[in-house]
Amino acid sequence: MKRKIKVGNLFIGGGARVSVQSMTNTPTSDSEKTLKQVLELEKAGCDIVRIAVSNDEEAEACKNIIGKTKVALVADIQFDYRMAVKCADIGFDKIRFNPGNIGDESKVKEVVAACKRNRVPIRVGVNGGSLDKNVAAYASGAEALAQSALIHAAILEKYGFYDTVLSVKSSDVRTMVEAYEILDARCDYPLHLGVTESGTKIRGVIKSSIGIGSLLLKGIGDTVRVSLTGDPLREVEAARLILSALNLNGDCVEIVSCPTCSRCNYDMEPIVDELEKKLYGLKKKLKIAVMGCVVNGPGEAADADIALCGGKNGKAALYLKGKVLKTVPVSDAVSEILALAEKMS
Amino acid sequence: MKRKIKVGNLFIGGGARVSVQSMTNTPTSDSEKTLKQVLELEKAGCDIVRIAVSNDEEAEACKNIIGKTKVALVADIQFDYRMAVKCADIGFDKIRFNPGNIGDESKVKEVVAACKRNRVPIRVGVNGGSLDKNVAAYASGAEALAQSALIHAAILEKYGFYDTVLSVKSSDVRTMVEAYEILDARCDYPLHLGVTESGTKIRGVIKSSIGIGSLLLKGIGDTVRVSLTGDPLREVEAARLILSALNLNGDCVEIVSCPTCSRCNYDMEPIVDELEKKLYGLKKKLKIAVMGCVVNGPGEAADADIALCGGKNGKAALYLKGKVLKTVPVSDAVSEILALAEKMS
Repeated sequence: MKRKIKVGNLFIGGGARVSVQSMTNTPTSDSEKTLKQVLELEKAGCDIVRIAVSNDEEAEACKNIIGKTKVALVADIQFDYRMAVKCADIGFDKIRFNPGNIGDESKVKEVVAACKRNRVPIRVGVNGGSLDKNVAAYASGAEALAQSALIHAAILEKYGFYDTVLSVKSSDVRTMVEAYEILDARCDYPLHLGVTESGTKIRGVIKSSIGIGSLLLKGIGDTVRVSLTGDPLREVEAARLILSALNLNGDCVEIVSCPTCSRCNYDMEPIVDELEKKLYGLKKKLKIAVMGCVVNGPGEAADADIALCGGKNGKAALYLKGKVLKTVPVSDAVSEILALAEKMS
Repeated sequence: MKRKIKVGNLFIGGGARVSVQSMTNTPTSDSEKTLKQVLELEKAGCDIVRIAVSNDEEAEACKNIIGKTKVALVADIQFDYRMAVKCADIGFDKIRFNPGNIGDESKVKEVVAACKRNRVPIRVGVNGGSLDKNVAAYASGAEALAQSALIHAAILEKYGFYDTVLSVKSSDVRTMVEAYEILDARCDYPLHLGVTESGTKIRGVIKSSIGIGSLLLKGIGDTVRVSLTGDPLREVEAARLILSALNLNGDCVEIVSCPTCSRCNYDMEPIVDELEKKLYGLKKKLKIAVMGCVVNGPGEAADADIALCGGKNGKAALYLKGKVLKTVPVSDAVSEILALAEKMS
């Protein structure tokens, strides 16, 4: 079990449910646009939103965002330690900051003091481009990532600071998985999982699913970020589906559907698409199966709360808790399933 | 190391590269449509294509497909053992068939004889809906799936048949992963990995990536099928990207790109999309990084063959093997990168 760390109104680690993170990509100085994106992310099911803060103007703009959302807000600081101090003071819930990048430890001390007085935790986030130089001289790959993160964390420990979350992202899935495994074995800091620079749409979703998913399967990971080029809302959707695939998403609707083959006699894909869309975000623990034919259909239906199993002549069998309820025209399938889902507790 | 099994012109197991499978969803009796889909799948990088064969008419239609494609062809037989015999005899490269479902073992013997005389291997494919009834009485979940597969395989062994590939698909990712782990420990038959009924588009891609990807990460799995509701070409694309993410896809182009944040000053997503599209299928081992800004950009560029790193005023830095080559207008970025990729060996 990892150390339990409070971030805004939620916890990371210590048995808390795995939280979902994303990051704004609007100009931080435009607080109206940024707040709009933060609220959209909140609505999509994001728990923690990170905002890059590079200068005073951007920090000032964030004052218009803090307090207006239920998500926890994290300031991403790259170079200027004064921004870390300022963001802790103005009400950010967490700071992402690598103390080893700052050079002068008196500055680190100032950041730690600001985080302590505001009870703000720090995420140390190492990736291939931000390895500790001493470590890079003798280690490489996963080992170098993990050791770099621990060295950054040790600098914070020197000043009595332990509210630390660690990440060791890599764009290589094998390296990333191995680095988190090393870290998991060597410390009790909660781990923020992610594949960095994972790419656009389908490639990025696949890399993140393998990396984050295989670690979560082993019980490693306390909070996750899916990094995708493009609209951050897709990051949240993908993260929620990763958690859902591993039954870590709390109460939610799971839709299973067969790939269809020559045995399928109806146009199944639009039905599944519409159900996915209309049931997204519904907080009920329901399994819905949409199946093409009677070969695998009844078997899958037996295991689902609601199932549709294609027959001939535009008809399909509707199953409730594994038993045939009635035969319905395929054209009514979506509304029939939604009505059943509505009624179920 | 698993037993090495010949399927058409390729091998499954025994150290052979992991092959990619899909399945047609056209009416099998329409051989023109089905052949067209088989050829599209071949072009997309599919190694093995499965076709459901339920009756004589469908088997006859397949004679117009066999011999016209380089992919290995598998006949999917559900109920009628005579179709298994016929498909082995007419030139299918593999039969998917569960001997335990047939009842009468003299029929199994006939299928085995047909497969032996044609040197055709068999895949035994168990899923939640096709558990062995005796096993289902005392075991459940992953254990029941694995034991069912082994019981089917044992029936074939009784008749001296060992050219068997096993699969134990489940729509639950945890169950699927565990079932394959059990099977991997208990036999030397090569394993065909898949999450069954995994769903539409993004949900299905995510479930398959976690399930197949986490097993491949452990060295488990010899051939893979991503099951997605809809166009099977998307299954092949996803399977190839899973292999690519784990460096199991032979020579191919890997594109990494950052998720962009407020530090990114150019419209990066269309550039990545266009590169993905134009470089799909190129058989060169190249890593291309497309990055938003100078914070993580140069670090990632150091590790890439070609990199683009966004600057200000519509300009970006183009890196070759980690060194800045030149500054280019963002509008020329795609053509500049494609020209470099073309030249590289």
